[in-house]
Amino acid sequence: MSGDELEAALREIGAKRYHRLHKFHEMLHGGHCTKGQVQAWALNRYYYQAMIPIKDASLIARADDSALRREWRKRLEDHDGIAEDDGGIARWLKLTDALGLDRELVQSTRAILPGTRFAVDAYVRFVREKTLLEAVASSLTELFSPVIISERMSGMLANYEFVTPAALSYFEKRPPQAGRDADFALDYVKRHATKTPEQQQLVLAALEFKCSVLWAMLDALYHAYVEPKFVPHGAFLPEDQK
Amino acid sequence: MSGDELEAALREIGAKRYHRLHKFHEMLHGGHCTKGQVQAWALNRYYYQAMIPIKDASLIARADDSALRREWRKRLEDHDGIAEDDGGIARWLKLTDALGLDRELVQSTRAILPGTRFAVDAYVRFVREKTLLEAVASSLTELFSPVIISERMSGMLANYEFVTPAALSYFEKRPPQAGRDADFALDYVKRHATKTPEQQQLVLAALEFKCSVLWAMLDALYHAYVEPKFVPHGAFLPEDQK
Repeated sequence: MSGDELEAALREIGAKRYHRLHKFHEMLHGGHCTKGQVQAWALNRYYYQAMIPIKDASLIARADDSALRREWRKRLEDHDGIAEDDGGIARWLKLTDALGLDRELVQSTRAILPGTRFAVDAYVRFVREKTLLEAVASSLTELFSPVIISERMSGMLANYEFVTPAALSYFEKRPPQAGRDADFALDYVKRHATKTPEQQQLVLAALEFKCSVLWAMLDALYHAYVEPKFVPHGAFLPEDQK
Repeated sequence: MSGDELEAALREIGAKRYHRLHKFHEMLHGGHCTKGQVQAWALNRYYYQAMIPIKDASLIARADDSALRREWRKRLEDHDGIAEDDGGIARWLKLTDALGLDRELVQSTRAILPGTRFAVDAYVRFVREKTLLEAVASSLTELFSPVIISERMSGMLANYEFVTPAALSYFEKRPPQAGRDADFALDYVKRHATKTPEQQQLVLAALEFKCSVLWAMLDALYHAYVEPKFVPHGAFLPEDQK
């Protein structure tokens, strides 16, 4: 495959497997979630947000090239911020605050679903254990995130009286960051997955894997909070499921 | 031990074990090294410099606290720089350039001594595998580095006609960075090693370990380039040992 063919194949994976297509997101963005379901989503997704800098530092710790480390460091800055109460994790907590969730409960992550934890931990492990090329490629879901974020912001603001623009400040900041990061990572895999067809297959498989991580997180939410509403003991229980 | 007693015990370790006391440093700073010995030192020490951001990213990847990650990120900035040709690694290459070493040879690290590689790799592994408290504590040799750096700068400038101020730009930048980092790490271990006496012993052992890493690097240099001058096959061979 040429670089452009590889890019087309990556975009094709997104078109089929990105979690934008999951039934739970259709509900979330279309205004069909209860407040409890939106709370469960934000609480579980917090664990993903909190682990992202750990995932990114794990990638930096494997890169023997100063330039790659410097570029990837921007992701740490985006998520951990330059100062306290700055950065993506702090902004996600504004969302969980606005949804009426207890901050200590959210940050402890003790009420998340096991399915959320397994999926996120599998992602961190993937980045630590696979090749650096696969680790970079697994970040490429960012190629597709600006669209889902814009749908999410407009959909959630239009449909839920308990969601305010201030609560969604995380999503306002993300698209330019994600765009910059996805451009870099796409260019990286196009430049580095050139030696063998096997390398390109590993790149495609890494993106499929990452799509599965995001998809599995929504499967776990759907199972616990939509249908059949089986909530594991110890996990968050919305008011209307008590 | 109180926090202050712990600090005193840490400083006592430095007074006895820090590599400032090694015979090779006495020679280096006192003007008793040949140019070949200075080259061998800079070439081997490059590997340490190059692995420091990998060590620091490994620590960040283990920290579940955004504030600790944010603080430790400054070390990545110091070593990898904000832009290309900036940062500690780039400045170390100015030194090896000035000493007439081939940059490709230096960056490949293929001519370093096995003893250098084993010591540095042991340090990275320590930070990845021990507790976070021990990983932080192992950085505390920075408490002692401003003194050695000032001795090194004045000693090397006074004693070697082939060393210029520009070549030593790395050392000019380090003392304020090292001071800031050491203050943070010392405060961290004083605040966190409070639950059991065993924790304080682990902190002390971590600093002893790190002193051994730096010491072993100089032992390897001394053995290969001072006495008995046994250079392993493949390692850097100065002109006057050929």
